[in-house]
Amino acid sequence: MQEYESVLARIQDPGDLKKLSFSELNRLASEIRSLIVSTVSRNGGHLSSNLGVVELTIALHRVFDSPGDKIIWDVGHQCYTHKLLTGRREDFSTLRKSGGLAGFPKTSESPHDAFNTGHASTSISAALGLLAGERLKGGKNRVIALIGDGALTGGMAYEALSHAGQLALPLVVILNDNKMSIGSNVGGLSKYLSRLSMKGYYQSFRRNFDAMAKRLPFIGDIFFAAVVRMKRAVKAIFYTDNFFVDLGFEYVGPIDGHQIQRLTEVLQDVRTLNRPVVVHVITRKGKGYDFAEHDPGSYHGVGSFSVSDGILESPVGERRLSFTDAFSRAILEAGRRDSRVLGISAAMGKGTGLLPFKKEFPDRYFDTGIAEGHAVTFAAGLAAQGLRPVAAIYSTFMQRGVDQLIHDVCLQKLPVCFALDRSGFVSDDGETHQGLFDIALFRSIPNLSILAPGGEGELKAMLDWSLEEPGPCMIRYPKSACPEEPVAFAQPLERGRGVLLPRGEGSRICLCFTGSLYTQALEAAEFLSQEGIQADLYNLRFLKPVDEDYLAALMNRYDLMVFIEEGIKNGGFGEYAAELGNSRFCSGKILILAALEGFVSQGKRDELLRRAGLHGLGIATAVSRAYKAALGVEWALGSRT
Amino acid sequence: MQEYESVLARIQDPGDLKKLSFSELNRLASEIRSLIVSTVSRNGGHLSSNLGVVELTIALHRVFDSPGDKIIWDVGHQCYTHKLLTGRREDFSTLRKSGGLAGFPKTSESPHDAFNTGHASTSISAALGLLAGERLKGGKNRVIALIGDGALTGGMAYEALSHAGQLALPLVVILNDNKMSIGSNVGGLSKYLSRLSMKGYYQSFRRNFDAMAKRLPFIGDIFFAAVVRMKRAVKAIFYTDNFFVDLGFEYVGPIDGHQIQRLTEVLQDVRTLNRPVVVHVITRKGKGYDFAEHDPGSYHGVGSFSVSDGILESPVGERRLSFTDAFSRAILEAGRRDSRVLGISAAMGKGTGLLPFKKEFPDRYFDTGIAEGHAVTFAAGLAAQGLRPVAAIYSTFMQRGVDQLIHDVCLQKLPVCFALDRSGFVSDDGETHQGLFDIALFRSIPNLSILAPGGEGELKAMLDWSLEEPGPCMIRYPKSACPEEPVAFAQPLERGRGVLLPRGEGSRICLCFTGSLYTQALEAAEFLSQEGIQADLYNLRFLKPVDEDYLAALMNRYDLMVFIEEGIKNGGFGEYAAELGNSRFCSGKILILAALEGFVSQGKRDELLRRAGLHGLGIATAVSRAYKAALGVEWALGSRT
Repeated sequence: MQEYESVLARIQDPGDLKKLSFSELNRLASEIRSLIVSTVSRNGGHLSSNLGVVELTIALHRVFDSPGDKIIWDVGHQCYTHKLLTGRREDFSTLRKSGGLAGFPKTSESPHDAFNTGHASTSISAALGLLAGERLKGGKNRVIALIGDGALTGGMAYEALSHAGQLALPLVVILNDNKMSIGSNVGGLSKYLSRLSMKGYYQSFRRNFDAMAKRLPFIGDIFFAAVVRMKRAVKAIFYTDNFFVDLGFEYVGPIDGHQIQRLTEVLQDVRTLNRPVVVHVITRKGKGYDFAEHDPGSYHGVGSFSVSDGILESPVGERRLSFTDAFSRAILEAGRRDSRVLGISAAMGKGTGLLPFKKEFPDRYFDTGIAEGHAVTFAAGLAAQGLRPVAAIYSTFMQRGVDQLIHDVCLQKLPVCFALDRSGFVSDDGETHQGLFDIALFRSIPNLSILAPGGEGELKAMLDWSLEEPGPCMIRYPKSACPEEPVAFAQPLERGRGVLLPRGEGSRICLCFTGSLYTQALEAAEFLSQEGIQADLYNLRFLKPVDEDYLAALMNRYDLMVFIEEGIKNGGFGEYAAELGNSRFCSGKILILAALEGFVSQGKRDELLRRAGLHGLGIATAVSRAYKAALGVEWALGSRT
Repeated sequence: MQEYESVLARIQDPGDLKKLSFSELNRLASEIRSLIVSTVSRNGGHLSSNLGVVELTIALHRVFDSPGDKIIWDVGHQCYTHKLLTGRREDFSTLRKSGGLAGFPKTSESPHDAFNTGHASTSISAALGLLAGERLKGGKNRVIALIGDGALTGGMAYEALSHAGQLALPLVVILNDNKMSIGSNVGGLSKYLSRLSMKGYYQSFRRNFDAMAKRLPFIGDIFFAAVVRMKRAVKAIFYTDNFFVDLGFEYVGPIDGHQIQRLTEVLQDVRTLNRPVVVHVITRKGKGYDFAEHDPGSYHGVGSFSVSDGILESPVGERRLSFTDAFSRAILEAGRRDSRVLGISAAMGKGTGLLPFKKEFPDRYFDTGIAEGHAVTFAAGLAAQGLRPVAAIYSTFMQRGVDQLIHDVCLQKLPVCFALDRSGFVSDDGETHQGLFDIALFRSIPNLSILAPGGEGELKAMLDWSLEEPGPCMIRYPKSACPEEPVAFAQPLERGRGVLLPRGEGSRICLCFTGSLYTQALEAAEFLSQEGIQADLYNLRFLKPVDEDYLAALMNRYDLMVFIEEGIKNGGFGEYAAELGNSRFCSGKILILAALEGFVSQGKRDELLRRAGLHGLGIATAVSRAYKAALGVEWALGSRT
């Protein structure tokens, strides 16, 4: 019977949606929702945000004509329904797997993905550029940016709204507002008003009002000013939010984001507008999956879970502390010891482990929203008052605060401590979320210390050290479990120096690594020793400043210094070391192992390390090859034997 | 007679203002204005913005108690009156001179400069941090951010306003609105309304309204929603701008920013408020100096000029084309040839030379306002449509768009061309405006090509080359005159290769330079040849990508390769070259000459180059020393003679 046939299976292209009845569309929404829940329960992913926009996505594709019309998904973590409707249903089981469908829009994956996203607050800028370009080319296609209320706290969205208002192109901004739920009582009036504003009632009122004001010049300028103010007041009655209107947008809403028919009607009206418009849609995160609906935060970005009872699965096996947990504990202890210590987050309180600190010290915790630039300078202001702000920000998002770090923090040597979580290779999220640039980006900034702990103990020691420093510090660590630290890691920190881990007498090779790669370096040393090649380990600890005499002495002591860093090679620590070896005429040969040029697509961290040759065996192979190759040249490693 | 005695001479400290009558304060304003005009006419500086805030600054210091109360000057280019009132009158003649007073607030200069500024849109973030810190410490001092309407287009200001509204601390934001002039007729009503909103009339109205709404639950929720909307409407009558109010601020204004007494009264009221407040002040740029008042743009940042006739002086001697002029011509030609070429500016249209392009192609020119982040992603959107946007941005301000460059442009390999004006050492403006980080910051970004022209011809060739590339490009050039280019610079561009300028047979040294240092490298070669040391020149052209086989071959051909770059050494091109020499086992010794760790304070570009040892003689001296030192070691330069 047709009623039980899958509607989704009939959608090869979003154009197919136009043939369906609203009851079929509703069935489609329910099928999609089930598929998302079951797929994410296996593969992990962003659950709550995707469940919130099922109907909205269906309505958008029903009304607009992708890929001619372009839909830009802000952040992009809500694009699963979009992917299912645009020819990727059959690949959906590979979501977020290595080589599979990305969890974010990707132009390389489908012509329906008009622009890559991943970081917040870019959609309106990108959409405005696409639309301006379309019009310059004489095209008539529409461009739609869909942005959540969270991403709207990012200043870039405001910059783009302001520019869009000025250009007055017919940009459609869908504000996906999922903070408040829809009260049953609000619907009536707001529905009426939003239809009203579209249907021209207000527009004609406004025209008449303007005409009247122009026809009455005699009333004098002071009265006119009052009239203008009155006009604003009238506008305020018709529009529920003046913010967008002030910027030059039409405003429509709020609209229930789970009513496909209603959304379709409004979007059809919106489509005919010849001005920028904000459509305010109210959605419910986690909609339709009870566990997520009642606790959307916990189901925002999840690993695998059980569909029937909603229980989030823990990785099997070891339950070792993560670096994030270690930071969480360390800052809590620091906060108890020193009342000057403050926690700063830019909407990453949970992810960075700051919530226990917030709970214990609510007055000393600040969440700026998705606003890294502001967060950095705000922290600088706190530091200028003699306080000790610790800003915990993911490595990839710190790219948003580069100028503020240079201009507001480091130039004034203000003692802000940056805890850079998710540095290095990051599992699952792909190109946009890797933390591979921080060493290269921040190493050039004067006055900044950069540290990389090898485990829980070092992380705590580094945070404590940073909190005593008179200037800015950055501590970078990966999204991974802390390894068991060797005793040597408990040595007190010495500015600019690392920790040497000798593995027997007479080693000719030293594996110098950034903290996050201790496990891999250790494994490499063990592989090498199986080959009869003995290598010591050196945990760099400080990527900046460096005690150059000390490091140069090491470079003279060993025949081969291998610099292994979890970051991009261009501009990384290895290049610095190569130049130090060069300018100090060091005798040791230098080999750099790091991420090579290019963006790194999704996979688990271990796999990404393997792809880059930064796993134990990969390191050992490269070192062994370099060691043997070097034996062939005159000044080679072997020359002293 | 006292009437003719200088009032300014009696101000040792801002506290002295409190003893003066309003007529004395007005005389003070006029004295300050004269002093600013005469000093800037000699030293150059920001004229229009400083003349606009003389009275406002006096009023601020009359009402608030600096340095306990802190005033943060957004951008900071309007701080001259502040400096004159805070003990720096006698040093004012050294303004912007090397070793003299900075043109921007500097904490190292005075306790009255509470926070360094230079880049736009940071003041509210910094002020909020300072205020939150003050309150955490139990202090009662006030913090005031003064921000222009231009800087308010920067998204960071919005992020900060939004956070400030949430924290509800009594932050004072002075909106220095100098876009519109004050019409004589507006004053009456707005004055009345702004006093009214302060004096509690509206506040009590609002309280009563809220109480009434609460007392009438029976009217039902739908009616209540209408009431809420009515309330907004009422608010809109009393407040002239709802934007700030929506974010949680009180709003006062607009106020005539040239009436000291009126400003003082309002600020005294504001001082007693216990909530965040925006004070909207209307000022006139260039106020009181006719030439500037009528053309504030031309007198925004000026060199020396004649006070009596306002004529801006040209540097004596050569009137060679600047790199900016060369870019201006090149993009105009490109635009005529190819209709896909677009010009993008972030409020730097004049400074980057885009105005002739704008004039000829108004539809193909976009100015985003002070909003580099948005500008970069907007350009990416245009490029995704197959167009050829050229975003002209100062090197120092490009630091605001790092994430957008990585995430929106380079990840998608979108062909945006970035014209980085004011790269390298920048005259006069000091630490905040140097363009020394771009190579280090951007070299790590995959898919990006970075080029550095040596003169007008190369700049044009590089722009044309970039416009044919399938991916993103960056062209960096200094704020200086183009040198006369040697014939060799006319060689067509080859990806990854530079231009070799041999200076005779058998050179053992090669001076490799970033384009902007051609003159200095040439001078160095001439100094060296006077010493009997012969050196060839190599214009790198490409900082990325590099034809590594070609560069490595050069490193084998010469005994000493000197990499001279106008940028910071940490993370710069030289380190890359050192690693290339290392990994390719090149025989040539490598010497890197670049800006060392640290921020660079104000001075003329030539002097800054000299300070860094990057002038001809400095380079020659370093090269000569390295050459001689190297003779002493076994594998030395001299070993082949």
